[in-house]
Amino acid sequence: MNKIVECIPNFSEGRDSNIIKEIEEAIINTKNVILLEHSSDYDHNRSVFTFMGSMEGVYDAMYKATSVAVNSIDLTKHEGKHPRIGAVDVIPLVPVQNVTMEECVELSKTLAERIYNELGLPVYLYENSASKPHRTNLADIRRGEFEGLVEKMQSEDWKPDYGTKPHPTAGAVVIGARKPLIAFNMQLNTANIEIATEIAKKIREKNGGLKCVKALGIMLETKNTAQVSVNLTDYTVTSLFEVFDTVCNEASKMGYEVVSSELIGLSPARAFIDTAARYLKLENYSYKKIIESHLLNLEI
Amino acid sequence: MNKIVECIPNFSEGRDSNIIKEIEEAIINTKNVILLEHSSDYDHNRSVFTFMGSMEGVYDAMYKATSVAVNSIDLTKHEGKHPRIGAVDVIPLVPVQNVTMEECVELSKTLAERIYNELGLPVYLYENSASKPHRTNLADIRRGEFEGLVEKMQSEDWKPDYGTKPHPTAGAVVIGARKPLIAFNMQLNTANIEIATEIAKKIREKNGGLKCVKALGIMLETKNTAQVSVNLTDYTVTSLFEVFDTVCNEASKMGYEVVSSELIGLSPARAFIDTAARYLKLENYSYKKIIESHLLNLEI
Repeated sequence: MNKIVECIPNFSEGRDSNIIKEIEEAIINTKNVILLEHSSDYDHNRSVFTFMGSMEGVYDAMYKATSVAVNSIDLTKHEGKHPRIGAVDVIPLVPVQNVTMEECVELSKTLAERIYNELGLPVYLYENSASKPHRTNLADIRRGEFEGLVEKMQSEDWKPDYGTKPHPTAGAVVIGARKPLIAFNMQLNTANIEIATEIAKKIREKNGGLKCVKALGIMLETKNTAQVSVNLTDYTVTSLFEVFDTVCNEASKMGYEVVSSELIGLSPARAFIDTAARYLKLENYSYKKIIESHLLNLEI
Repeated sequence: MNKIVECIPNFSEGRDSNIIKEIEEAIINTKNVILLEHSSDYDHNRSVFTFMGSMEGVYDAMYKATSVAVNSIDLTKHEGKHPRIGAVDVIPLVPVQNVTMEECVELSKTLAERIYNELGLPVYLYENSASKPHRTNLADIRRGEFEGLVEKMQSEDWKPDYGTKPHPTAGAVVIGARKPLIAFNMQLNTANIEIATEIAKKIREKNGGLKCVKALGIMLETKNTAQVSVNLTDYTVTSLFEVFDTVCNEASKMGYEVVSSELIGLSPARAFIDTAARYLKLENYSYKKIIESHLLNLEI
């Protein structure tokens, strides 16, 4: 079984289709890599690509795509709703098959080194690759954004892991290995955003709710629907089942219900398999009851 | 990606641990094969092995295990609750990864030919390998059991696909490629088997219920619990979600509920993933939202 890594780079360009196309081509023209999803948002002025491949494939594709971004995206002229510190803002690397978190951390550092050495782009390592505990969280690294980078990098706490000062037009990039994150939204049968916000507050870890859950109430204007938007950072700690069930219960207490849900990006199979086992009340469940769980043990 | 096939042979020996061990060793000592599960039942006097591997691995392991069974199990002295026609009673072959049903049918015929030529064991092909429509169903082939084989084989309809008369002590074997079957049982909060039987009647295809569902009411004496026992022969036609939900609803109509469930043997991942998507009311679900669904497209 080959070692497979997923990569979900975020670029600070969601409007210029030529630049977006050039980034996409850098990825899809690389060997041993496949593009899984791509979305660009005008208001955020941001594009997200999801691709996966061998360690070498992901390394090559990501270096090339970063090179395009550094040469084409000028942060001094960039505006958009989403916070960002660089032309390529963040590069998460996620183990998918036959690969350890440690190997992904190693890959993130090799990639970071080349990006700094050859493109002059300073790098912060985050999540499992972080060099210090206070630099684990993306939001903390990104605080102050591109415009605040010169000042931020002078503080001892926020000296980059590679480099010392921002790239003049491309800023800096955050790179790191992390567990798969599940971005999962639930729609309520109400247009009252207060209800969604109330539920979000109850379930998020920050307010004493479910571990590994970040949540927001969001108004979907076009659908006239209130949505509870969730990022689940470790589905092995809090299951997707638990998130959904808790939101359903909280909504029900207020006289509402969850009418539908949506998945942003992709999810690992196991998050869904565990959820089904809980729903089915399966008493003899273990992941070994799933045929495909044994494929990795078959080294042929 | 390697071609992987699952094989779930049933042997007519559940008591003599030496013979059972010899069969197991024939499987586990074969290259490119892994044993996933094994269960032996004294009352049924029957053992079921679940293993998977490459096409060649499964072919080798299954030939060797059959050879052990033909030499060690004497059906003229066999008694047990479960219907059977041979020492190795049935050999289902199921596509798991990167393999078509047609390739599994081909494998079943190659294996059948060798088993007949070298061990003198006549073979009926069933399910997707069946040579005639009336020979698709295992229960029809097995009707009359070992004791009725001499007579059965004289009828034009029941001439074996390989061979003309039963092996004197090992009878005959049924071999074929089929879709994965999910054996799934649901326990009710009652010890009244009539309730389970009533639900089973309502949901099974034979009585106009759910397609691809076979169901029975069973009394679990040791647990003092009534159980609805289901075989789902194609989860892409009727989902596991639908089976569970329908049983829950039927139970609820009679004032009962499903308190737990169990999986006999293994299940393909997708049956569980589809079930979770339904439970989560995921409106943008497709199997492509699952990262691992793309692994097959990554030919590295």
